[in-house]
Amino acid sequence: MIKRALISVSDKRGIVEFATKLSQLGIEILSTGGTAKLLRDSGLNAIDASDVTGFPECLDGRVKTLHPVIHGGILAMRSNPHHMEKIEQLDIKPIDMVIINLYPFKETISKEDVTLEDAVENIDIGGPTMLRSAAKNYPDVTVIIDPKDYDKVLEEIENRGNTTLDTRYNLALKVFQHTSHYDTLIAGYLGRGLKTFPETLTMTYEKVQDLRYGENPHQKAAFYREFGSQAGALGGGEQLQGKALSFNNINDTNGALELLKEFDKPTIVAVKHTNPCGVATAENIFEAYKKAYEADPQSIFGGIVAANDQIDGQTADMMKDIFLEVVVAPDFTAEALEIFKAKKNVRLIKLEDIKAKKQGYDMKKVLGGILVQEKDDALLEEIKTVTEKAPSEKEMEDLLFAFKVVKHVKSNAIVLVKDQQTVAIGPGQVSRIWALDNAVKNAHLDLKGSVLASDAFFPFRDCVDAAYKAGVTAIIQPGGSIKDEDSIKACNEVGIGMVFTGMRHFKH
Amino acid sequence: MIKRALISVSDKRGIVEFATKLSQLGIEILSTGGTAKLLRDSGLNAIDASDVTGFPECLDGRVKTLHPVIHGGILAMRSNPHHMEKIEQLDIKPIDMVIINLYPFKETISKEDVTLEDAVENIDIGGPTMLRSAAKNYPDVTVIIDPKDYDKVLEEIENRGNTTLDTRYNLALKVFQHTSHYDTLIAGYLGRGLKTFPETLTMTYEKVQDLRYGENPHQKAAFYREFGSQAGALGGGEQLQGKALSFNNINDTNGALELLKEFDKPTIVAVKHTNPCGVATAENIFEAYKKAYEADPQSIFGGIVAANDQIDGQTADMMKDIFLEVVVAPDFTAEALEIFKAKKNVRLIKLEDIKAKKQGYDMKKVLGGILVQEKDDALLEEIKTVTEKAPSEKEMEDLLFAFKVVKHVKSNAIVLVKDQQTVAIGPGQVSRIWALDNAVKNAHLDLKGSVLASDAFFPFRDCVDAAYKAGVTAIIQPGGSIKDEDSIKACNEVGIGMVFTGMRHFKH
Repeated sequence: MIKRALISVSDKRGIVEFATKLSQLGIEILSTGGTAKLLRDSGLNAIDASDVTGFPECLDGRVKTLHPVIHGGILAMRSNPHHMEKIEQLDIKPIDMVIINLYPFKETISKEDVTLEDAVENIDIGGPTMLRSAAKNYPDVTVIIDPKDYDKVLEEIENRGNTTLDTRYNLALKVFQHTSHYDTLIAGYLGRGLKTFPETLTMTYEKVQDLRYGENPHQKAAFYREFGSQAGALGGGEQLQGKALSFNNINDTNGALELLKEFDKPTIVAVKHTNPCGVATAENIFEAYKKAYEADPQSIFGGIVAANDQIDGQTADMMKDIFLEVVVAPDFTAEALEIFKAKKNVRLIKLEDIKAKKQGYDMKKVLGGILVQEKDDALLEEIKTVTEKAPSEKEMEDLLFAFKVVKHVKSNAIVLVKDQQTVAIGPGQVSRIWALDNAVKNAHLDLKGSVLASDAFFPFRDCVDAAYKAGVTAIIQPGGSIKDEDSIKACNEVGIGMVFTGMRHFKH
Repeated sequence: MIKRALISVSDKRGIVEFATKLSQLGIEILSTGGTAKLLRDSGLNAIDASDVTGFPECLDGRVKTLHPVIHGGILAMRSNPHHMEKIEQLDIKPIDMVIINLYPFKETISKEDVTLEDAVENIDIGGPTMLRSAAKNYPDVTVIIDPKDYDKVLEEIENRGNTTLDTRYNLALKVFQHTSHYDTLIAGYLGRGLKTFPETLTMTYEKVQDLRYGENPHQKAAFYREFGSQAGALGGGEQLQGKALSFNNINDTNGALELLKEFDKPTIVAVKHTNPCGVATAENIFEAYKKAYEADPQSIFGGIVAANDQIDGQTADMMKDIFLEVVVAPDFTAEALEIFKAKKNVRLIKLEDIKAKKQGYDMKKVLGGILVQEKDDALLEEIKTVTEKAPSEKEMEDLLFAFKVVKHVKSNAIVLVKDQQTVAIGPGQVSRIWALDNAVKNAHLDLKGSVLASDAFFPFRDCVDAAYKAGVTAIIQPGGSIKDEDSIKACNEVGIGMVFTGMRHFKH
């Protein structure tokens, strides 16, 4: 039987109606501060917690409910006669239900001009304590943090005089999910900017959506977002058309966005199975799309396209000729949107700040744990010509373009570029020369006069020899092999200019 | 100036020495329960919290410090005259330092026979509340949860009469890192076995080690473990020899372990750049290694080898002929260990329960969030022969072997197997036929009489035609393409037996 409820909420939606029903069911209501005032103004009889404790609310509300009369009332085990005897002795009345939500710490730190003092003042102490007390004593106490649970709880009380043990357990679980989330946000805020890896790493996410399934249909999945700005991230985008994004859509689109952020000028990135299949920069987005498409007109089918400039009618018109899973861009013209209406299956995502870079950590799940690392946010350490011939200015532009792309191709990777357009991409081989052979074999465009980028150093001269045979005139790679000299010699023999970056970009 | 400290610790290491020093510095000590007794038995003058609050410790210790006299003393802002006036009026003395660690919830739930009641009783309420109060008021209060911080704090007090603001801030951060970790463990325990994705997902990890660097030398990184059993996971292994594991070692070894767990009989998995390059099953581990090595004697160089049975001298002797980054096995004979001594750079990991399977979630980090999915723990839905000819019993064994392997190769993937040995592996292509072409082109063994597995369905008949040309006699694939009939017809034309599994295994 629920006889007394303590109510103290910062989210006041539905609280008057809920408290009114509780009151009609004969449940006595304790309350504090603003909630007490609201309930009384609504004609309810709410007893102030300070009247119960005999201790005044003090220190600007910092101390209100941290009192044994409150916590004894919540924590006493009803099935334990010693407990019940003791609280009677101490004149403590049981509190059977606790309805609380916390100071809006997240909303506070979401404000742009928040000060540290403001943030700290919004760390709730009394609220989490009552929630945790009530959740600990879930065999006897019903605890609610979410207005969505009012109806279910009311229905159970109306039907059987109390909530079920099962419901109380689930509500207690919800409390600890909430308090862990709340304190993780606090730790994240206080530790913002820290560059070390703490002894315990706790991370918290909010669900964006359940997904139909994961990488494969037999795996359940969901998409979660971090706290904080979603600028430049898919979670901050607006879907204008098409079915919900799938797990693989999100993963592939993310890969396309990461690569796209390497470029400033109008650029298109096409991705298939998490590897880029066509990347091109041009004067405008239509020309860029045309070049990215021509780089590999086969693989782009069923792929993801990311653009860093508005999609216009002409571009949409060309895009509609093939099946694309996702098109993401900062904007679409009205004409473009009209054209895409004929292709209802294409998911269109508007992501205004698509160029915004995001810092932070990268993670890989392994059995029983995770690997955490800084994102690979750098491109190169230096540009050092190591051959007799230096690359021309035009070659250098293409070399940098190619190195940006190869950074985002699964290792081992080789990328060939000509005129700011990928002309051959060789991803994910166990051997570097295989990656090069693959790239060359599957190329759709003429490779003569192209430049080559490798994500890691050449262990042998074989890649230089194969590159020369394919028509490559300049090479960019990290350098650092004990056999660098072999590759340099091979370049000098045939007049290839080669530069070292001093920075490797494995991506697995 | 620190005048009063409250001490209540479950981890009592160093507390007597620390409290003695505080006492010698003229700091008054409040305490509770077992800590108070210990301090008094050590000759210190420790005042009971209940003497200060005037309220008895009650409900078997459930309510001890949840009192305004304690929390007012912690939370009053020393720079706020109203606060200081108020606490004086209420006869509350400031508490300037809080030294607390929590009920051992984690240790409790780590016990094999823990009951829900035990676990719940070990949820600390008073401790986290005092920690959070003190951390909130870090401008004035020093809060310690970790005995490791005693020395630094003492030194500061001895040198300047108080801790620095910077130290107090960092100690406060440590508190919220700890309370979020603590409540995440509670939520994880109460929610164990839940099969839905909660609205807020909070996850917590403990650091195993900082790593020299991440996937690339310019990225900082660390390895973290989950709470709970590490059976079958790398975090549960024991390193017997070699340098510390790198980020890429851990990632690659994890991939090898995941694949290895598909097999029961003596099996070797060799991995390079997160893709298997040789997998074989045999009567004993030496024969298995020989077959896995011969599958691709080039790629295994610098790779990872995982074995599901003890490594003996004969096997070690063969392994030592090439450079391997990591060898992981349930055990090594004394002879094997002796042989490996000559190869000091090989990292040897003993993982006794290497066959233990781990359930749980898989995650992928994306910009601004994460994708979470169930692990791909299944193999197939059914085995349905769709061609006129059914695979022979021997072919069927090889088909299942191949399907287990292809599940762990990056998509799109093709694997060819003969006699429980991979004879060709084609990983990570944007097109399925490229994957097949690659596999065939780079094969080191005769493909005649081999069987083929594909991780996803064939969109066209081209793969069947190419497979036949390579000597393949049977095929396993999920099926489900609208053009399945074309592939079936192609099989029937040349007498290939094909089975559908009804389950796809993309892995990106």
